[in-house]
Order: sequence, then structure tokens, then C-alpha cells
Amino acid sequence: MSRLLEDIVGELSRLPGIGRRTALRLSLHILRMEPGPVHEMAGAIERFRNEIKYCSRCNNLSDRDVCPICLDADRDRSTVCVVESVGDVLSIEGTRQYGGLYHVLGGVISPMQGVGPSDLKVDLLLDNIARGEIREVILALSTTVEGETTQFYIARRLASFEGLKVTSIARGIGFGDEIGYADELTIAHALHNRISIEKE
Amino acid sequence: MSRLLEDIVGELSRLPGIGRRTALRLSLHILRMEPGPVHEMAGAIERFRNEIKYCSRCNNLSDRDVCPICLDADRDRSTVCVVESVGDVLSIEGTRQYGGLYHVLGGVISPMQGVGPSDLKVDLLLDNIARGEIREVILALSTTVEGETTQFYIARRLASFEGLKVTSIARGIGFGDEIGYADELTIAHALHNRISIEKE
Repeated sequence: MSRLLEDIVGELSRLPGIGRRTALRLSLHILRMEPGPVHEMAGAIERFRNEIKYCSRCNNLSDRDVCPICLDADRDRSTVCVVESVGDVLSIEGTRQYGGLYHVLGGVISPMQGVGPSDLKVDLLLDNIARGEIREVILALSTTVEGETTQFYIARRLASFEGLKVTSIARGIGFGDEIGYADELTIAHALHNRISIEKE
Repeated sequence: MSRLLEDIVGELSRLPGIGRRTALRLSLHILRMEPGPVHEMAGAIERFRNEIKYCSRCNNLSDRDVCPICLDADRDRSTVCVVESVGDVLSIEGTRQYGGLYHVLGGVISPMQGVGPSDLKVDLLLDNIARGEIREVILALSTTVEGETTQFYIARRLASFEGLKVTSIARGIGFGDEIGYADELTIAHALHNRISIEKE
């Protein structure tokens, strides 16, 4: 096998979910691309790794010191949505239903994986709240044991701020999910947090 | 969304089978890699595209003018296995059951996709056979209409070489396949080409 082919297949198989067979398929596709676009792809990968910054206010990925969301004057600066990762920001932005700010923790508390509270950007969140503009903190964390632990920890840290509303996104049956396949905890949550159906 | 993140996600989503969600996941993985390995990955992609050559004898991918398989003195130079693509060479090499040479056609005849006989490296194959060392040509093409058409075309072109053995890899029921799920053409082939079971 050609060394150049061996190299690209080896490098692409480092990526999660990409085995040697997929890496080979991707490599043969790259071979059929024009040199210009391949140069752009390789450049985008390296620039992203070397030049990306974390927003000094919300810890989201950013090209500059402060991210465009934090700088956007049209966004509601009284609400901050706390998420685990950059991907969650993109998911929530994708809904086009949220106009407030974000705060990216950079993970969840997980003793199994050696992630403690001090590894998360919780102090930065408290500093932001201490400035006084924020009225509501929405916790949008995973419904895993780690997510619930993190939610409990942050809610406790936020308890000292008087008048600050702390909420959690709703737990319930997802759209397209069947009740028969949902676990009991989810069903219990969904029952407990039932909402009134508006009458015609 | 950060421009650097938008760039890498956009570039990775150009690859087949990689949507924006997967591209984002890969990008966040790249973010956690050290700069050195990311530099190596980007370099391997670009070097592969810019420096890879096609073997002047067998049309396989190669770092040099002639590929290592064609140069390997230990391989059986009297047998050539004709395949569609570089990936097929790797699949057959993976079996460690074949010690002859290869010939990569670079596709199959497909009028639907505008691929005619002149787009394939058939003349190069005939030139190689004309040198007189090759005794057997094994056609290892897909069992699609295009593959069968290509096999028929090449077999006809090879008919003029006296004493040249032209074979096709066996068609039959694959290992792990159930007869009940095999199509009738495959079952008919498998029946017709049945092999004797050695008696103890």
C-alpha cells in the first residue's frame, strides 16, 4: 500500500466513528476533488485548531476574545442558558426559539471521568451574574446522572443570588417517542409536569 | 457561529456520508487533539491529493512511477487480477490469499454515468499482456450489470491472445448469507458452479 495513502487513512481513522474502511472511502473521494478545495479543507482543519478561541464571557467557541452572541445587542441580556458544550449552543440556536445569552460549562461533573466542579466554568458564570444584568438562568443539561448532579451543584451555587430565577428545561416525552418505550422516570416527570391544554 | 468553526464544518461536510452534525462532532474532536497531530492530519490530506501517482504499469495508487506490488520480485508475474478500483486491491490484499499482480481499471462501463470503454485502462492491460509474461487474467469485477458488461467487454478484447487463460472470480452464496435471502440469479450461479466435496 502506498505510503501517502497509508498516511491519510491512518490520520482519518484517528477521528471518532471513522474506521479504516470509511477512511479509505473518504481518501478516494479526496483524490477525486480538485487540489484547490482539498487545500481549503486541510487549511480549515488546521486554522480551526490553531486560531479558535473561547469567548471570555460565555466560554463558547469564538474567532475573537468575545463571541458574536455575547456582542449581539439584539439579544436578551437578562437570560442566560447554561449548556454543557458548544454543540448544545448550536442545537438550541438551530431551534430559533431562544434569544438570550449562553454559558458553556465545558462538560458535566463526572467523578468516573475525573471531572470535578473546578473543571467547569462555573466561577465565570457567577462573575457574570454578579454584574447584575441577568434575571434568569436556564439550566439545559443532559438528563444523565452527571447532568443532574451538575444541575444540582449549580443551582446550589446560584442560591445566594437574591431574586435570580433558576429554571431547568422541561423533561418529558420527546416528539415522535412512544410512551411504551419511555422509561418510568421520564414518564413520572412528564406526568408531574403536565401542562394545561388550552380550550377552544 | 464562529467563522473558523463554520469553515471546518462546511469543509468536512463535503465528504460523502458526513453531514453537518457529524462534521461538528469531528470538529470538536479535532479541537481536543494536540496541534501537532492536527498538523499531521491536515498535511497527510494535502500531500495525498498533491503527490499521489498512478502506477504506470497497473494504474494502482503509488508514491512513485511504479507501485510496490509491480516491483515486488516475489509476486507471481504470470497472473494479473483485474479490479475496478484501488479499494478492491486493498480488499483482495487483505485476504492474503493472492500473490499475483493487479490491474486497476478505474471504473466499470456505465452508459448511465457516461463511462465508456475508452475511460478505463484496458489498453494498458493489453499492452502488459502483449509483453508475454502473463498467463492468466482473473476478472474480479462487481456482479452488477455494469460489472458484467465490463467483464464481457474485456473478455472479448482478450480473446485474441492465444493460450491466455481468462477467469472470473466465483459467484455464489457469501459466507454468513442465508439461501432464503439470496436472489435467484445468485442461487442459479451457485448451483451451476457447484464444487465437489472432498471425501474423508
